[in-house]
Amino acid sequence: MTTLSTSSCLPTSATVREVGLRDGLQSLPIVLPTQTKFEWIDAAYVAGQREIEVGSFVPAKLLPQLADTDALVSYAKQRPDLLVSVLVPNLKGAERAIASGADLMLVPLSASHAHSLANLRKTPEDVVAMVGEIRAARDAAGSAMLIEGGVGTAFGCTLQGEVRADEVLRLMQALLDAGADRVSLADTVGYADPASVRRLFEQARRIVGDRLCCAHFHDTRGLGLANVLAALETGVSRFDACLAGIGGCPHAPGASGNVSTEDLVFMLESMGIATGVDISRLLALREAAGRWLPDQPLHGALWRAGLPKTFPSYAGAV
Amino acid sequence: MTTLSTSSCLPTSATVREVGLRDGLQSLPIVLPTQTKFEWIDAAYVAGQREIEVGSFVPAKLLPQLADTDALVSYAKQRPDLLVSVLVPNLKGAERAIASGADLMLVPLSASHAHSLANLRKTPEDVVAMVGEIRAARDAAGSAMLIEGGVGTAFGCTLQGEVRADEVLRLMQALLDAGADRVSLADTVGYADPASVRRLFEQARRIVGDRLCCAHFHDTRGLGLANVLAALETGVSRFDACLAGIGGCPHAPGASGNVSTEDLVFMLESMGIATGVDISRLLALREAAGRWLPDQPLHGALWRAGLPKTFPSYAGAV
Repeated sequence: MTTLSTSSCLPTSATVREVGLRDGLQSLPIVLPTQTKFEWIDAAYVAGQREIEVGSFVPAKLLPQLADTDALVSYAKQRPDLLVSVLVPNLKGAERAIASGADLMLVPLSASHAHSLANLRKTPEDVVAMVGEIRAARDAAGSAMLIEGGVGTAFGCTLQGEVRADEVLRLMQALLDAGADRVSLADTVGYADPASVRRLFEQARRIVGDRLCCAHFHDTRGLGLANVLAALETGVSRFDACLAGIGGCPHAPGASGNVSTEDLVFMLESMGIATGVDISRLLALREAAGRWLPDQPLHGALWRAGLPKTFPSYAGAV
Repeated sequence: MTTLSTSSCLPTSATVREVGLRDGLQSLPIVLPTQTKFEWIDAAYVAGQREIEVGSFVPAKLLPQLADTDALVSYAKQRPDLLVSVLVPNLKGAERAIASGADLMLVPLSASHAHSLANLRKTPEDVVAMVGEIRAARDAAGSAMLIEGGVGTAFGCTLQGEVRADEVLRLMQALLDAGADRVSLADTVGYADPASVRRLFEQARRIVGDRLCCAHFHDTRGLGLANVLAALETGVSRFDACLAGIGGCPHAPGASGNVSTEDLVFMLESMGIATGVDISRLLALREAAGRWLPDQPLHGALWRAGLPKTFPSYAGAV
């Protein structure tokens, strides 16, 4: 009868980090005006979100969608209790991030050797070494910025297929040894399922405890929220998500991107897990996203169905 | 840190009962030709599905979509190892079901008093009494047909809001006492979340054990598969699902209906839980559904993204 024994506890609160401005927008073939991004940051903040990844320090010619990251950091940092994240792909990006005044830089590492070479033009070992340089640069600058090593393709890869769990765990530990303050695991291409999530997160937490700080799931094959539930049950309490599930997947035209922020917050709050987010305000932001991105595929289910009458803050309409 | 302790085991196999021909089609404003339904039953059988709810014995003028239920039972019963279910709303329907030779009749009861009156024009107590009459009719006919009492709106209701768990449990027991062979719990309007699923299914199984035989989730607010996972963790191993998530919700235009069969089978098989279903054949059936229902909203994510390379039966294309 039994394949897998589950024994765990759920956190009483969880953090949803909005990554739509980075992971979402970088996949869309449009450039959202900086002023609109300011409105997004404002609305997310007013709704109660306290962690936002605002962009990426990559060359503007590679990702013109994210060319205004510096301005977004400055704008977002006007709110002292907002944790402002940026992604950095290399040392130069890290130096720009340190100078920007952001609170956290996410350094992506792809556990798939093939994906790493294709996407980052570096081996995973190169990225580990680079994190050491980034740590030295941060310390030399006297900066308190957090360094998060994000291990991507942690559940498999569209190029090489299987990615071994022991390789993921080894690279996760190597990132910490090289100077990352914390690590996260990402299902970059939507290959995870609740059983693989449980196995990998349990193993990872056994090794590094709370330094494993975040789970990043894509909803490519519809399992995003089930995977969140499995990770929650291993004690993870911070999740990346994209407003309206934007972002898509370059390998699956029309598929959803990250788990949608509003559906994730809805699930957590329904379960009695406090997110600090006012879901009615979040749904208003979701509506605004429909105006800002009129021709882009938006995802998620809650915005269409509305809140249940039994939801604590239900007020008759959304 | 803890709101809820979870301790459970997962089944090694699970059954996905196809209910698209009934719960799906009854909500669509079209009548699918009987010949097409035959093709659907054939393809589902060939894909490995061994439980199909083929229709409902309701007056044809109320649900013309399901007027050919008798013919579908006869057709489906040509396969001796296929468990053929029908829904029956009243004693007359039950008599037709017994005469049809189907294997199982699902008698729906709505735990929400308001929903029960609006939808069935009976109180929950009336339905319990009716199940006693249905049991007597079945026994008098010398039929071995199974009677499943399906407790709907078990997690809340769009009319009355909250539905108390103790009322759900009381009605579930009353159905068994009145003569039902087994019971199932349904989240008719998409109000369940993984925490409420775990609580209710744990309580229900403590009371009636394996006579609680099935979980029926709608994906109205995106939590369908997460709710399946929570129910699995309490030991449930039979789930209703609709091909392409058809069916919708009369209270939420455009929202998904039941969890989609193909996404559910994909999740279970990915987790190592055997369903007996060949997912490539199921995806071919999903494609056929797109031809059969060209103007209807179809849901689900897997058909768009395709199988991961790491999926056991991945063969390069779907």
